[in-house]
Order: sequence, then structure tokens, then C-alpha cells
Amino acid sequence: MSHDRATATDDQRPERPPVLAALDVGGTKIAGGLVGPDGELLHRVQLPTPARENAEAVLATVHRVLDLVAEHPLAAAARAVGIGSAGPVDIRRGTVSPVNIPGWRDFPLRDAVAEHPGIKGRPVVLGGDAVAMAAAEHWRGAARPYRNALCIVVSTGVGAGLIIDGRLHTGPTGNAGHLGHLTVELDGRPCPCGSRGCIEGLASGTAIARAAREAGWRPAGTETATGVGGNADASAAAVAEAARAGDPIARQAFDGAARALAAGIAATATLVEIEAAVVGGGVAQAGEIFFGPLRHHLAGYATLPFASGVTVLPARLGTDAGLVGAAALALDALPTGAPPTDGR
Amino acid sequence: MSHDRATATDDQRPERPPVLAALDVGGTKIAGGLVGPDGELLHRVQLPTPARENAEAVLATVHRVLDLVAEHPLAAAARAVGIGSAGPVDIRRGTVSPVNIPGWRDFPLRDAVAEHPGIKGRPVVLGGDAVAMAAAEHWRGAARPYRNALCIVVSTGVGAGLIIDGRLHTGPTGNAGHLGHLTVELDGRPCPCGSRGCIEGLASGTAIARAAREAGWRPAGTETATGVGGNADASAAAVAEAARAGDPIARQAFDGAARALAAGIAATATLVEIEAAVVGGGVAQAGEIFFGPLRHHLAGYATLPFASGVTVLPARLGTDAGLVGAAALALDALPTGAPPTDGR
Repeated sequence: MSHDRATATDDQRPERPPVLAALDVGGTKIAGGLVGPDGELLHRVQLPTPARENAEAVLATVHRVLDLVAEHPLAAAARAVGIGSAGPVDIRRGTVSPVNIPGWRDFPLRDAVAEHPGIKGRPVVLGGDAVAMAAAEHWRGAARPYRNALCIVVSTGVGAGLIIDGRLHTGPTGNAGHLGHLTVELDGRPCPCGSRGCIEGLASGTAIARAAREAGWRPAGTETATGVGGNADASAAAVAEAARAGDPIARQAFDGAARALAAGIAATATLVEIEAAVVGGGVAQAGEIFFGPLRHHLAGYATLPFASGVTVLPARLGTDAGLVGAAALALDALPTGAPPTDGR
Repeated sequence: MSHDRATATDDQRPERPPVLAALDVGGTKIAGGLVGPDGELLHRVQLPTPARENAEAVLATVHRVLDLVAEHPLAAAARAVGIGSAGPVDIRRGTVSPVNIPGWRDFPLRDAVAEHPGIKGRPVVLGGDAVAMAAAEHWRGAARPYRNALCIVVSTGVGAGLIIDGRLHTGPTGNAGHLGHLTVELDGRPCPCGSRGCIEGLASGTAIARAAREAGWRPAGTETATGVGGNADASAAAVAEAARAGDPIARQAFDGAARALAAGIAATATLVEIEAAVVGGGVAQAGEIFFGPLRHHLAGYATLPFASGVTVLPARLGTDAGLVGAAALALDALPTGAPPTDGR
């Protein structure tokens, strides 16, 4: 990411494997990095998100992260910039309205990034964070062998991205794959989104902790770890630990979450046909406590022959998926070279 | 559909607008026809399906229909043949296993049609009947203005097809869009498919008649019209008539069906992003008794900004949609000319 446009142009020769700049914007942290032509993360920087401050303060942190990325020797070779952002997003307009960053509503993040001196003139591509994660898992991770896959993040919420016919399917506004807000209970619990019985309200880490608590489970040694204001991943991890030790209430909480997610995977398989569901995020760290019931319930809901063979796999890329996925989005924007999510 | 391959080849000049042969295979009737370059139905023949007879008898009826089509003067000009069949289908293998034609299980319909003397040498394309209907509505009907749409048939069952990014999305096996078997009640009624709480079990004509009957409604003048063995469309039509006259139980039966279908449309909008949902089939004939509650409930379930603007429209093509859609599938197989479901 040099300020020198001539250098940047030299580096944009089609025959040179691209280095890509990447930005991962979440409610907790803003990460930036450089990603190589095979999806390897070459450089990573990260700052905390000032999520409760105003729009300008959050943007200043984004620009500070971009400054730090630009200090790396390979930054000048970056041919495009990909952004994965907490959503909702609108990729037509280049705006984001992250639930956990209240200062940004319809915030023009794409243009604000494009104006950074180290980036000017390079293509900038915006996508949602779960969609970016799906692009990453398809490029370099567990979804790589599949032409049709759903890649899911289960943590505080439930997000996902779709690979259809070998390509990332973003939808016109970039929000396709919003699995967490499929209704699986017509009369279910009201969801903050305004609907009812959403998968997120049943399968997220938050929901697992709540279900365990409502059924009488308490974490060893503390009364507050599963409180509503606590860290949902940590709370779900405590429930997972209890489940592993055989606590029936904790097991039931994971089973209920797995059942709702299974219905969502089955719905996706039935509606668009997928070969695999890749599941990552904090809740997936629970391992077989979650994946066992997930596969069991999926067999119960995905029964039609064309939907019954979906393979369930853990995600591979972990915390790097955000940056690798943002780079995958950027690679799609380059005129040369096949997009990473196509045609293997 | 001449036996004369030389003539057929002359007729396959790229500059000549194609005439397409079409076959629509259902549990009640087998229809055949010729469709012009703008999707106009030029010729139609139809015979009853001997659905309870063996595989050979059903195939003999298919070939008899193809014989009748071949008698038309334009048949020799047909450049390809499209088949829309009751499903499940497997378009990779060219086989069909229609629920209502028990003699056909993994039946190689595509090859069996290709062997008809009037067809030999022409491309033959197989698809599911609901997917064909979606192709028809996108080519010539209500879905024409949209690049992303769900086209639904609500009659004895609930089927659908998806248009994504301006193209028909069949899925690898041709069964994508199977909306009727999305689960919207995790603990719902067991479905013949093996799952639970499927939309078809709540929103089909069969389900409407059952819901009304279970709530105590009886059709005027007869005790059997809503019986399980009766004609579901006719039964639902009787319930619709009562609903229009103000019967609260009948209204409630349509409201319940509309609510389940609305959750399915919302799920599709949330998962893949669609601009429109086109609804046809016998139940849709009920008009505002069905469409009113459908739009009302859709507003309740499709709440995220990118999903909340879905337009709900009645289908336009009626009983011709099967043949027109089969022709649309065939047009996709031609090397020349843009596919009908793309790029208007």
C-alpha cells in the first residue's frame, strides 16, 4: 500500500500473483492484513473497536489499522482491498450498519476505506463478515472440495455464507446466507430482528447459555458467568464443559441448539442443494458435544434423497478466516486471474 | 420432430428462432406440445396418466403423447425437447421417481424420451415440474421483471423453483426450490418425507382442507368433499368459498396456511435474497382469501431490511406453465441464443 501510484501500477501486472490487503471490522476488534496469492496470511495487525464512540472515532481506528498495514514492505504490492464487516451491509451502496457499532448506520465504509492514502486507486470490495468467512473456507478451508456449501459461524449470533455452483453467493445487497434469521418455530420466541422463532435465538452461544440457565444450570464457582451481560462464547464454553462432564441440563442445551441449526442446514439443503455445511465460531469449539447432536438432528430433518447427504465439518481457518475471506472478496474484483471461489 | 436428421439439421440454423418440443409429466395427466421462440404455446395434446400401471404402460403413454406432437407440421422444426416431471428427479442421471407414479422409481425418463423416433438426435433436457413452472414464470410470466425470485405452486402439495442472479437455479440434482419440505415447526406434524413441521403439511390444499375439517368445518351439502381421499384442490376451493362468505373456521384455515408459506418465503429471502415470490396452483386461485394473509404474515417474518421488500404476485401462466417451462429448460440446452431465464 504505497502512496506511489506508479509503483502500484507496476505491481499490478496480471502475470504477478496478487498480494491483497484485507480489513475485518467487528464490534470487538478491527483487524487488517496482507494475504498472499494462495490465501496465506502474510501480515496481521489489530486494534480494539471503539464501538461505543461516534462514527468518526470508529473510522479513525480503521484508518489507523490501514496505516499499520501500509508500513509492511509488501503493502505496496497490494492489488486490491477486501473488507469483511459486521452487518447488515449493503454492498450495492458500500454501506454498513453493524448491530454492535451503533455509531455506524448506513455508514459509507467502502468509500471511507478507498480514501485512505495507502489505498487510493485500488479496487475496494465490501462484504459481510459471515460471507467473507464462507469465501475463506471455500478458498483455503474445509469447504474447498465442494461446489455447493453453507459456511456457518455460531458464536454470540449465528451467521453464514453460501457457496453455490462453485461461487460465493452474496445476493444483491450482500446479505445472503443470513441463516440465523430463518424461522424454525412459527410461534417461537420474538427475535430482536422483529420476527419469531429465529435460529439465532435457539442456536447461538447466547441462546445455549440462556437455555441452560433457564433449566436451572449454574456454572461452578460463579453466579454471573452466564448472565445476559456476560460473554456468550465464554458462557457457552462453560456449558460445554459441564456437558462434557455429563451434566444432563448442559447436554440438553447443546442438543436444543444443534436441533435448531440442523433444521436450518436442512432448509438450505432443501432449498438450494448443498453438499457440505462447515461450522465454525466459538460454539463449534465445543466439538462433539455440539457436532454429535447436530449430525443426529440433521439426519432427522434432511430426509429427501437430494438433501440427506450433507457432510457436516468443522471450520478450519479460525480467527484468520475474517482477513483471508476479505482478501477472497478482493480477489473476485480483479480483472485478471480466476476468482478464488470458482472452478477448482 | 421428423425422422429425417438432415431436415432437423437444416432447422437448427442458429439464426432461426427455435421451436421447442415440451413434455409435462404429472400423476394425473401427461401433456405434450410445441412452444415458439417467445414462449407461446403453439400446440398442446394431453392424455391421462395410467399412474397405477407399471413402468412400461406409463412410458407407452409418454410415447403416444410424443407421437401426437410429432403429427403437427411444426414438429419437424423442434430443435430441442424439454421435460418437466413430477419429482423427485435426478437431472444428473436423467431419472424420475414421481411420488404419484409408483411404477417409476429411478426411471430413466430422459433416455426413454430421447429414444422416441421423432426426437432422436435432438437434445433432451429434464427438470422437475415446479422448477419448470419457475422457468416459465421467469420467461413469460409474473417473475419476468426480477433477477431473483421464488416461484411457488400450492395445490395438493407445495413445490417451487428458484431464479438466482437472473438464471434458473436447479441445484446439481434438479431439486432446488423444494420449499414444501422446509421445517417451520421443529416439533411439528411428522411429514411423509420423514421430517417434521414441513411447510407442505401446513400450507397445501390438503392441509387447508384438513385444518378446516379438524376445526369442525363441513362443506355445504356433503360430508365427504374434504375427506382425505378427496380432491385437495376442490376441497380447498370449498373452504375458500366458505372463507369468502365469512366463515371464521375457513378463514382461519387459510390464515394458517398463509402463515407457514410466509415463513418459507421469508426464509428464502433471508437465505438467498429474492425480490419477488410468485404463487400459483389451485390454492392460489382462492385470491385475496389467501394472498391477504400471506402478505400480512410475510411482513411479520421477513423483517431484515434486505428481506422485507419481497413482492408477492399471483402466477400468470396457469395450466400452460408446465409446457412453457419445459420448453424454457430445453432452450437452455441450445448452443445458440441466450437462455430464456437470463439477461433481459
